[in-house]
Amino acid sequence: MPNPAPLPPYYLQQADCSRHTIFPGVDIFTAAGENLMISIVELQPNSVVEPHSHPHEQMGILLEGEFTFTIGGHTKKITPGEIWRIPSNVVHSVVNGPKFSKAIDVFCPVREDYR
Amino acid sequence: MPNPAPLPPYYLQQADCSRHTIFPGVDIFTAAGENLMISIVELQPNSVVEPHSHPHEQMGILLEGEFTFTIGGHTKKITPGEIWRIPSNVVHSVVNGPKFSKAIDVFCPVREDYR
Repeated sequence: MPNPAPLPPYYLQQADCSRHTIFPGVDIFTAAGENLMISIVELQPNSVVEPHSHPHEQMGILLEGEFTFTIGGHTKKITPGEIWRIPSNVVHSVVNGPKFSKAIDVFCPVREDYR
Repeated sequence: MPNPAPLPPYYLQQADCSRHTIFPGVDIFTAAGENLMISIVELQPNSVVEPHSHPHEQMGILLEGEFTFTIGGHTKKITPGEIWRIPSNVVHSVVNGPKFSKAIDVFCPVREDYR
């Protein structure tokens, strides 16, 4: 009889997260729950998240730096503390500014490609 | 014929969020999507989030300050950048340290009581 699945750890450091380079100069560090995923996003100066979409709902907040977000054709310069809200399947992209930026993104459901 | 529901705004400031004082000295600023909710949590020195649970899955990250989290009976001092992951219905509580702390919490599904 198989053992039950191990309880996921309650506490994690960024170093415990899964790291993916999703675009040149754009690294993410992800932690998955059951239906939620948190992603710490680090963007090198002038890096670009190309336009894309996914069925997963996405929200996020900028912690550090400054970048330009485009969601569903609406473009806005984002400064720390600002929140974005991307409904399922809406095309979005980011152009980072001349400094390093750091953001938190969250997804529902879990992005299997980012585990 | 009713108009279609307005499109939720893609971009928000903390000042656009709903504010709730959930425990003495603990204020949250929330933004809801369809299945996701982001909450900016501000904890005054030595404030306490009493033990509680909810069916909503919760994850979060500490941005500033230091506090002690207890999740499912496991207690840990949390410093900035650390992530927590609280499965559905697991009891959790927080005791803030002697400084102001700021965190991000995310919930799935949306907490109707925090809209």
